[in-house]
Amino acid sequence: MAATKANPIVFFDIASKVGPWSPNTWKTRLALIYKRIPYRVEYVSYPDIEPTFKRFGVLPTSDNAPQYTLPMIADPSSDPSKGPTYIANSFKIALYLDDKYPSPDYPTLFPPGTRALQRVFIERVSSLILLMAPTMLPLVGQPGFLDDRGEEYYRRTRQAKFGKSLEQLAEEGHQTWGKVQESWETFGRLLESDTTGPFVMGTRISYADLVLVAAFGWIKRADGW
Amino acid sequence: MAATKANPIVFFDIASKVGPWSPNTWKTRLALIYKRIPYRVEYVSYPDIEPTFKRFGVLPTSDNAPQYTLPMIADPSSDPSKGPTYIANSFKIALYLDDKYPSPDYPTLFPPGTRALQRVFIERVSSLILLMAPTMLPLVGQPGFLDDRGEEYYRRTRQAKFGKSLEQLAEEGHQTWGKVQESWETFGRLLESDTTGPFVMGTRISYADLVLVAAFGWIKRADGW
Repeated sequence: MAATKANPIVFFDIASKVGPWSPNTWKTRLALIYKRIPYRVEYVSYPDIEPTFKRFGVLPTSDNAPQYTLPMIADPSSDPSKGPTYIANSFKIALYLDDKYPSPDYPTLFPPGTRALQRVFIERVSSLILLMAPTMLPLVGQPGFLDDRGEEYYRRTRQAKFGKSLEQLAEEGHQTWGKVQESWETFGRLLESDTTGPFVMGTRISYADLVLVAAFGWIKRADGW
Repeated sequence: MAATKANPIVFFDIASKVGPWSPNTWKTRLALIYKRIPYRVEYVSYPDIEPTFKRFGVLPTSDNAPQYTLPMIADPSSDPSKGPTYIANSFKIALYLDDKYPSPDYPTLFPPGTRALQRVFIERVSSLILLMAPTMLPLVGQPGFLDDRGEEYYRRTRQAKFGKSLEQLAEEGHQTWGKVQESWETFGRLLESDTTGPFVMGTRISYADLVLVAAFGWIKRADGW
């Protein structure tokens, strides 16, 4: 029924030379760790992400480019005649894991009734991350960060998407960094509405905390590897 | 200690000819109703809001104009030698009411751990409301909606704030209404993350629901009085 050490969940992460780094895949990695579900990692180079989805028959995660994005998991079936269940998109994976691996056997990511509230919270964090894109994308694309094939693919596709080189994007990032800081400070003040503990939900960890840690880890890794 | 029928909370709402209408004061009215706390209403005409705050020694609710905004409540003290506690700003009032009038004696607005999540949720709803301002403000300012002194004050101060008449603002509203609809649809899809019940938190009512009802009530009142 459930993943075991001998038959773990396969977690697809993005290949790099610096270890796991993506804020989106970190959300899933942290969810698996927090829920103590056995998993093994398969690293996929950027140009291989779309073929990997297609090989497993998994639908695109977005209508817009990039259409195929990690994280993805393969949850093994207990029936040997059946293949694993594939889930892509970090939020869908988190919901799936909480449904399939519920409390009290596994720690809960979404305390009862908080799924919609946390979904709105995640969108808010995503808007903060989007504002950092001009600064962060050039750091991910810098030489020696991704694997060689990934680096070439990343620089080429991002240049096409933004209509400018990553170096030109970085210049934009310098100019907008003040806004980034301001927007995080505003967000921080909203979180101060709860004074009962260190976590978003006060004294208990929830998926919202993992989303923040994933974002902070990304900044740290990209800036200081 | 607590407000009673004989010594109720005084709830300051905005005067009008059409009954209570403001989305912000409705949040507090609904919170008082939901928590079943005895209250009586005092209606204040727009030009009298600032003098009312000053008379009671209550600090402004905002650094920017309008600096003094309703709702405000006066929670009576059980000590006859002491004056009531004044609280302004709908979210601060809601937190105060949940702290001062806690469960199990009174229904809870913020289930444990959800204050920060709900704060982020409310900011999201506020951004939806802001997008509707060009449509809604002219409806509030239309003849016969507010009391006469309030109407004159409202039209004059809003014209100064936006640098255009309410009629010109309404024209802008016609052009942006498509965006309003789109933004509510996007928001609705986020709420579908919870499928366990009709409320934002699934099977239980929370402050988030009252905030939505207050917004919908405003639209209905301003459009169809």
